[in-house]
Amino acid sequence: MAKQSGTKEVTKTALLEAGCRIMREKGYSNTGIQEVLDSTGVPKGSFYYYFDSKEDFAIQIIDHFDKTYSEQLRVYLEDKSLKPLERLKAYCEEGRKNLVQNNCSKGCLVGNLSQEMSDQSEVLRARLEEVLTRWRNRFAQCIKEAQQEGSVDKTQDNVELAEFFQSGWHGAIMRAKTTKTAVPVDAFMKIMFEQVLVP
Amino acid sequence: MAKQSGTKEVTKTALLEAGCRIMREKGYSNTGIQEVLDSTGVPKGSFYYYFDSKEDFAIQIIDHFDKTYSEQLRVYLEDKSLKPLERLKAYCEEGRKNLVQNNCSKGCLVGNLSQEMSDQSEVLRARLEEVLTRWRNRFAQCIKEAQQEGSVDKTQDNVELAEFFQSGWHGAIMRAKTTKTAVPVDAFMKIMFEQVLVP
Repeated sequence: MAKQSGTKEVTKTALLEAGCRIMREKGYSNTGIQEVLDSTGVPKGSFYYYFDSKEDFAIQIIDHFDKTYSEQLRVYLEDKSLKPLERLKAYCEEGRKNLVQNNCSKGCLVGNLSQEMSDQSEVLRARLEEVLTRWRNRFAQCIKEAQQEGSVDKTQDNVELAEFFQSGWHGAIMRAKTTKTAVPVDAFMKIMFEQVLVP
Repeated sequence: MAKQSGTKEVTKTALLEAGCRIMREKGYSNTGIQEVLDSTGVPKGSFYYYFDSKEDFAIQIIDHFDKTYSEQLRVYLEDKSLKPLERLKAYCEEGRKNLVQNNCSKGCLVGNLSQEMSDQSEVLRARLEEVLTRWRNRFAQCIKEAQQEGSVDKTQDNVELAEFFQSGWHGAIMRAKTTKTAVPVDAFMKIMFEQVLVP
C-alpha cells in the first residue's frame, strides 16, 4: 500500500515536471497532454487519475514550480552574508546566467502563463496573481532592509519599488526572448541598480 | 476588375482586423481560423486565397497592427506642441486609459505574441523583433530630444533608456492583466518619470 502510493507520487511528480518543462517553453494552449504523457511514458488513462483537467494540471504545475522557486528566492533574498541590494543583484545575475544558458529562450513559467492565460482562465489568473504577489512581497522585504541600512531612499514606497522591479524584470526577460540577446536584461540591471534602487 | 480587387481588399482587411482582435485576446495557439472566419462571414475556402498559412496570417496581422500603431506613435512622439517627456507621458496615459477601458485585459498584440511565440516560430520572432526595435528607436529619439533640451541626463545612453522604458512598459501591462488593476502601470509611470527620465 505504502509502495503503491509512493509510486503514484513519483508518477505524479514526473507528469508535473514534464508539464512544467513543456508548458514553460510552448505555453498552455500549445501544450498537448499526449506530449506530456509520451515524454514520461505514463499511459493516457492515468492522466485523469491525477488531474481533473488540463486547467487543474496547469494549477498544479504552477504550485510545483512555486515550491522550488520560492525556496530559491528565500536563499537569495535572505542571504545575510550579503547586503540587501547585493542579494537582489545576485538574484538578477543568476536569472541572467540561466537565460543565456538557455539561448535566451523559455523565460519564466509564471511570467509566460500570466501573459497568455490571464484573460483566458480566471482560475489560472487568480493563482498566478497570488504567486506573483507573494514573490513581489519578498522583493519588497529585501528593499525594505536596503532602506533600513540606508542604501535605498527611505521616503519611497518599498512595495511600489518591488512592483516596478518585478514587472520590469519580466518585461526585460520577455524582450530578451524576442531579441535573443541579454541586452534588455543588462539595460534593466544597470538602470535599476544605478538609478532606481539608490539612496 | 477594379471592383473585384476592391472587394478582395475589403475581405482581406476584415480577416486581418478580426484576426488581430481575436489573437490579441486569445494568443496565437488558441486562435482558430474557423473563429476568425465565423466572425467575418468569409467562407473557409477563401482563407488560403489570402494567406499561405496561419503563420503567414499572423505575420500579416502584425504588419497590419504595426501600420496603425506606428502612426499613433508618430502622432504622440512627434507632437511638437509638447515637450519630449510630456509626449512620452501622454503616450503612457493613453495606454493606461485603453487598458482600464478594457478592464485590464488584452494588453498589446505585439507584446503578447512576443511572449508566446518567440521560441515557437523563428519567422514570427524575427518580425516581432523588427517591429519592437523600430518602436524602441522612436522612444529613443524622443528621449534624445529630452536630453538635448536638458530634461534627461545627457551622459546616459538614450537607446538603453528606451529599451528599459519599452520592456518595463510591456512588463507593467502584463502584470496589470494578471492583477486586473492599473497599479503596476501607475508604479511604472511614477518611477520612470520621477527617477529614471530625469536631468
